[in-house]
Order: sequence, then structure tokens, then C-alpha cells
Amino acid sequence: MSGTVVVGLDVGGTSTRATAVTLDGERLGTGRAGGGNPTSHGAEAAARELRSALLAALSGVDPARVRAGVIGLAGAGRLLADPDGRAAFDRAWHDAGLRCPYAVHGDALVAYASGTAAPDGTILIAGTGAIAAQVRDLRLDRVADGHGWLLGDAGSGFWLGREAVRRVLADLDRGETPGPLGTAVLRDLLGSAEVAPRSRDTVDTLIQAVTRRPPVELARLAPLVVTAAVDGEPVARGLVDEAAGHLAASAARIRPAGATTPIVLGGGLLTGDTPLAAAVRAEVRRHWPEAPVRLAGDGAAAAAWLAARDLPEVTDPEALHARLVPTR
Amino acid sequence: MSGTVVVGLDVGGTSTRATAVTLDGERLGTGRAGGGNPTSHGAEAAARELRSALLAALSGVDPARVRAGVIGLAGAGRLLADPDGRAAFDRAWHDAGLRCPYAVHGDALVAYASGTAAPDGTILIAGTGAIAAQVRDLRLDRVADGHGWLLGDAGSGFWLGREAVRRVLADLDRGETPGPLGTAVLRDLLGSAEVAPRSRDTVDTLIQAVTRRPPVELARLAPLVVTAAVDGEPVARGLVDEAAGHLAASAARIRPAGATTPIVLGGGLLTGDTPLAAAVRAEVRRHWPEAPVRLAGDGAAAAAWLAARDLPEVTDPEALHARLVPTR
Repeated sequence: MSGTVVVGLDVGGTSTRATAVTLDGERLGTGRAGGGNPTSHGAEAAARELRSALLAALSGVDPARVRAGVIGLAGAGRLLADPDGRAAFDRAWHDAGLRCPYAVHGDALVAYASGTAAPDGTILIAGTGAIAAQVRDLRLDRVADGHGWLLGDAGSGFWLGREAVRRVLADLDRGETPGPLGTAVLRDLLGSAEVAPRSRDTVDTLIQAVTRRPPVELARLAPLVVTAAVDGEPVARGLVDEAAGHLAASAARIRPAGATTPIVLGGGLLTGDTPLAAAVRAEVRRHWPEAPVRLAGDGAAAAAWLAARDLPEVTDPEALHARLVPTR
Repeated sequence: MSGTVVVGLDVGGTSTRATAVTLDGERLGTGRAGGGNPTSHGAEAAARELRSALLAALSGVDPARVRAGVIGLAGAGRLLADPDGRAAFDRAWHDAGLRCPYAVHGDALVAYASGTAAPDGTILIAGTGAIAAQVRDLRLDRVADGHGWLLGDAGSGFWLGREAVRRVLADLDRGETPGPLGTAVLRDLLGSAEVAPRSRDTVDTLIQAVTRRPPVELARLAPLVVTAAVDGEPVARGLVDEAAGHLAASAARIRPAGATTPIVLGGGLLTGDTPLAAAVRAEVRRHWPEAPVRLAGDGAAAAAWLAARDLPEVTDPEALHARLVPTR
């Protein structure tokens, strides 16, 4: 058994996951803590979650064995540009007993590496937001979308939720009774699917229910669209197809036509067995018939692999990926 | 000369206009004050502007001669449902020396009446937001869109501005140099159209520049689209055509196919000689080839007409409209 240990962290908006693993692929520990995105939570709070996840993953592991680490997080560039944020992360690393260096990578790169060891390819993510990125030599190269809910995230959970509400509003404008998806949206937002005698009153109530909350919470409605699409509801099917078109179009902004490198699908909306995942696969096949399609998996393990592959004793990074990163 | 005077007010988000006019069409006074929309400014502040505009319009007029008044404002329904708001408006009316009753109507109805005296028809407004409404017997009947920037206002100034930014972002994602419209948008938002060596840096800066401000301020970019479209810029032309399609589609949600009643175009984007106005006219002709198209004009005068037409001495409301409301 190799004595060398590497550490990987996947820092997301709602959870932080850490893993400590040997180069043989033996998982020594995992840790989980709260959301640690420094952009949304502040660097200090993010660093606290980081430290907590690290300590859990390293419990029972001699930290001197840890030779390298990678932290994957959204807004990595912003953290690296902020001295206070960097200092907070350095302290968390040190407080966990680690003395080796660590690197910070964008969460999109880590998601990519959780699906493939190929140095070049594309990652396409749809969760609350949506982003596509070209990976070149395991670095993020060009990026498409990820522009946030106000200006972009086309085809994301936010987008699906907003469009679902817009379709109900259009039904109400026309004086038509909302269909199954619209009924589910009304029930979710208003507690009842009953339309007022003046349908404009329901329109106003619906708009107020949405605008009372942060806009990004419209993503909460995405599962209603997915569920309705599974049932074959035509409005939901249409939205899912439109979303898949947007996502593929974002990827096409940065991925050359005819490319044969792998495409990794990530994010809650694309890694499950959902109609959106199927529709995106179909769009991807249409654009890039030769490209293998993989699913993003264990981000913390992928981060650990990204940390390990630069160690001098690693001669076959692809074999190491097979040992460290469970792929689907 | 008729001794009877009527008062009309057009209360908008940025200005409040009042007019006092005799039934012969003699304009006795006009007044202008700051924005008075009770939803955005609070009922008290709105009532202050109302009073100030009223006092200016009535200077030199014996208020006992005023027999009726109409206030047109956005969110009229909300005001009427709010006892405090109503009380504030009642006080302003009384403080201006008026003892006659007044009615409150939606700004869309007043905009409609500023373009035609026909009791039935459609008003289609595109300014910062966008809304369409059916008018039946000079009452607002069904309404389409007006759903606000987060969920609707398709084809509005906000929509044009947001789409213009989205096109620049797509150009930058693709690594393409933005065209004339994109250049104008970058210059407006960033002070320079220079793209950073890593175009993603310009993407990030652009997104930050937009999200620092209230979203609705994206409407500020609409004139850039209009100007570029006048110059034949293809992206701008495309956006204008798309916006016109959205606006006509909103109207089609509530206006029957084949209807021959008038369509009044209102709002800053449709009342000027702009490419959007022309594109909307073309869409309207396509949907409703028989419908006369009118332009919204003097809202305060239209409000005064709406007030006057219910007076017992008014026997020919259409002739009264011709005297009171200058139409184009």
C-alpha cells in the first residue's frame, strides 16, 4: 500500500465534500459540511465548512502523509483574486494539520474530471444554473453561459421554473384553464390550483408569490417540470426539449463541430435518469455524433485525482483515475 | 363657453400630468409633477405629486366649476383596494379645492382613450414594461402580460436591453468580436468596448456591471437597440423583430382573430417613429388586417374626456373626444 495520501474537496453552494485517498485508491475517510461557496457565503464562512469537512475526512489519518490537495469550487477565480479569501482558505488548510500545497480549481473542471480522465473535452452542467466549458489539458479553457439567472443560465433549473410560471401566466391571460403542469405550479406557489373568477386576480397573486422570494428560487419548480415531463405532459415536454436545445447551444458556442472528445454531463438535472438528461443526450448526439457522453460523479474523488496526477510517482494518470474516481 | 370644467390626471412612474378643460375643449390649465405611482412611490408620496399637479392645472380656475375628474394610474386596482391609499388620494383631491367626485382608472385604459373614442378595442403598450389589454365599453376587460421583468414584459424596453446584453455575452463566449450593437452596449456599461485578452474577464465584468443595478435598469439600453436598428444593424434588427413578435403575441392572447376594432399603440417604444413601432404595425397588420391602428397621445386629456363623458349634458361623447383629445 502506498503511503502517499491525497485530499480532494468539492465545495458547492449547499454542501462541501472532502475525501482522503491513497494512490492505490483506498479511501481513508470522507467528510461533509455545509455550503462553502465563498461568493455566496463569504470566504470566512466557506473556510469554516472547508476545515470541518477536511477534519472529518482526515480523522485517523496522519496529515503528514498527505502530499497534495485540490479544492474545486464555483468562483475559484474570484477566490484566487481575493487575498483575504486566500488567507482564510490557507488557515483552514493549516488548521486541519495539512502542510502540503493545494490548488484551487473551478467546480466545472472538477465535475469534468469526475466523469473522465481524458485531458480534453467538454463539461455541460445544469442544476440551478447552467454552464458549459471546454477543458484543454485538464484546465478550463473557454466557457459558455453560467451568466446567472438574470442574463443567462438558459436551460437550467431556474430557467425551467421561470418558463413553467410564464406558461401558466399565458394560460391565465388567454382565459384558459391551466393543464397538469400549470396546475402543479399553481398548487406549489399558491397552495391551490383554483383560478379566481377574474383570472387576472390569480395572475397578480401568482406574480406576487414569485416576486416575494429571491428570483433564483424559481429553480425550486424545476422538479415539477421534470415530473410532468415523465408523465408525458405536453407543456413540460416542450419545456424540456427547449431547455435541452439551449444547453446544447451553449456547448456549441465553445465546442467545435465534429469534435470527438468526451462530453461530461453534470448537475442535478443531467446526472439523474430524467427526461432532460435524455433530451440533452439526444441533442448532443445530433451535434456531435462521435462524442462519448459521460456522467459527472464523485467531485471530491475527482479533485483528489487532480491533486495526485502531478505527483512524480504517478506515471499513468488514466489508471489512477480508474482507481480513484468511480465513473458511471 | 361652457362653464363646466373637467379634470384629468395621468399618473406615471416618472411624471404626473394634470389638465383642466372645458367641455368646449378650452384648456384652462395643465400641471406637471414628479412620479406618482403609488405602488413604487407609496400612496402618500403619490398623493403629494397628484396635489401639486392638480394645483398647477387649476391655478386661476374656480374649483367649483370642476364637475368630474378621472385619475389614470398603473396599479389602479391596488390603490382602490387600499383604504390608506384611497384616503391619501381623497385628501389631495380635497386640498386642491375639488368637491366633485373622481374615478380612478388603469393607465392602460387612459392610454387607450388617448388614441381613440371607440368604446371597444385593444391597447398595446411597450415602454420599460409591456402590456396589452382589451377594452370593452371603455373598461379594461382582459389583460395580457404586464407580468413584470422577471416573468414577462416580453418585447419591452427591459426585454430589448436584456437581450442586447445576452447577445454580447454569447459573442464573447464564442470568442467573437461584438458587432456595432454589442460595441455600443459594452461602451455604455463598461465605458469601453475593449475586450480583455481572456474574454471571460469581460463577461464577468459585464455581468457585474448589470447585476450591480436594479434589473429594470436594463431598459436603459433599449434606445441603443433602437438606434442600431435604424442603422440597419442586423442583431438589433433581429431583436426588434423578435420584440414585435412578442408584443403582437401578447395582444393575440386577448384579442380575437379577425377583430376590426381599433388598436392603440402606447408607451415610449411604440409612439415614436422607431423601427419597433414599424415592426409592431407590420405584425398587427399580419394578425388583424382590418384593424385601424392609432397612437396613444395626451393621457391627461384622455382622462378628462373619460370624466366628462358621463356628465348628463354630454350627448355625443365621440364629438367631445375630438374636441378634448388631440389624436395623431
